[in-house]
Amino acid sequence: MADFSVQSSEKAIGVFDSGLGGLTCVSELMKLMPSENIIYFGDTARVPYGTRSKETILEYARQDVNFIKSFDVKMIIAACGTVSSVVGKQKDFAGDVPFTGVVIPAVQAACAATRNGRIGVIGTAATIRSGAYGKAIRNIRQDAVVIGNACTMFVPMVENGITDKNDIVVKEMIKRYLEPIRRENVDVLILGCTHYPILHEAIAEYMGEDVRLISSGAEAAKFTMNMLAGKNMLSERTESGKVSYYTSDSKELFEANAHAFIGSRLMGEVTQISIDDIIQK
Amino acid sequence: MADFSVQSSEKAIGVFDSGLGGLTCVSELMKLMPSENIIYFGDTARVPYGTRSKETILEYARQDVNFIKSFDVKMIIAACGTVSSVVGKQKDFAGDVPFTGVVIPAVQAACAATRNGRIGVIGTAATIRSGAYGKAIRNIRQDAVVIGNACTMFVPMVENGITDKNDIVVKEMIKRYLEPIRRENVDVLILGCTHYPILHEAIAEYMGEDVRLISSGAEAAKFTMNMLAGKNMLSERTESGKVSYYTSDSKELFEANAHAFIGSRLMGEVTQISIDDIIQK
Repeated sequence: MADFSVQSSEKAIGVFDSGLGGLTCVSELMKLMPSENIIYFGDTARVPYGTRSKETILEYARQDVNFIKSFDVKMIIAACGTVSSVVGKQKDFAGDVPFTGVVIPAVQAACAATRNGRIGVIGTAATIRSGAYGKAIRNIRQDAVVIGNACTMFVPMVENGITDKNDIVVKEMIKRYLEPIRRENVDVLILGCTHYPILHEAIAEYMGEDVRLISSGAEAAKFTMNMLAGKNMLSERTESGKVSYYTSDSKELFEANAHAFIGSRLMGEVTQISIDDIIQK
Repeated sequence: MADFSVQSSEKAIGVFDSGLGGLTCVSELMKLMPSENIIYFGDTARVPYGTRSKETILEYARQDVNFIKSFDVKMIIAACGTVSSVVGKQKDFAGDVPFTGVVIPAVQAACAATRNGRIGVIGTAATIRSGAYGKAIRNIRQDAVVIGNACTMFVPMVENGITDKNDIVVKEMIKRYLEPIRRENVDVLILGCTHYPILHEAIAEYMGEDVRLISSGAEAAKFTMNMLAGKNMLSERTESGKVSYYTSDSKELFEANAHAFIGSRLMGEVTQISIDDIIQK
């Protein structure tokens, strides 16, 4: 087990994602815990994960975790709906470092928010195929009705800046993917992929104001804060924390595309690492 | 140099792509030269290449070539607009094995077809950023006017089956990407990515019947036939050739998605290989 001493509390929080979507989680971590140091790894040389097989996703996720662990972090967040779904309940996925995905945090928030027990879940093909959200929901609330749908075009749309709620392509794709969920009268919809908050406004407009949207990345950030607080592992730093970004493709592409996810300019240093180094570790 | 003896002519033709798009080239090879053996590798564990940096694409392409070379093929085709553009004119990219990308074949066909010297080029972000098609066109025809545009959503659209010419999303995305090209009165349009022939009908309808569409993968197949004929290296087999497919992600996903590109069921065996094995070679 990790050493939960006072010193450990000053270690960084490690966050990884297939690409840039996990930055929506980092953004929330920075809001909630501004004094924490954060290490972020976005595997942009192999993004997306959501269209790949379970075995390939697990292999990539293990390599990502090993890379993040090389920084001696106090906690690791898989800020990626696909990885979280495929890994499932493996609490020890990062060995002796506390680990969470986004599924359990999002599901806890959804179960607390629903009134009628009807919950929608959207995510990548691999996420929906895994059934991970549905299983986790029924663990908390056996009678819940879960309606899932894979929104395979949302990630490319977000990555290509096609996100405006008045854009006809955005409206049309949202209707195709969400109509089967809306007609089931859900009152909560889990955005089960960390790219999707960028489409929040457009999705909210389509679903209507009676449907509460749950952002899986933001919930993972809150969950992390509570978990660290419970273990007495929040940083006692008084100055602002430092965020360091690592990317497996070019630094320039990362910087150019990150601002849509982080909501502002990146405040930390970006370093490119070679995926071959990760694999050979 | 390779051994251009009679025996060499019975070796297979090697074809690779980032994923499934290169199958549009395989389909043409099978039509033109039904008795040739073909080895196809689709790097589905790392698809797409077109959104990545030049360095990462080159690294992946080198690994792909090394894998294909392990089969002792008589010729290698990079049936991928992105790889072909980034590699550029490196004829020795596969060492002593004759090598072609899709750029030169497509450009030769475009220059032969144009009457007014105004040529449109569409491809991935990396392809358009490279300027490879424009440079190759001006090498043949200095006065040509080349209008390029990156159609970054076409690959995800094709991979998600959003290709029907009457689909409002297809119509709208084609208009966004092709309007700047159509208004320049091109009379030839190069489909510079091997995914794009799947959108052929919709693109043809938008561009109008006076614009000739050039499919880069099909042109690479014709180019290969001519090149092999010129070197006296066409197979003299009388029975049908064998096509063997290799994929870096799951065999099942490959088989499920391939038919859109090959126009029929796959007639050959699919084998999954590990990308780690390629890298460590």
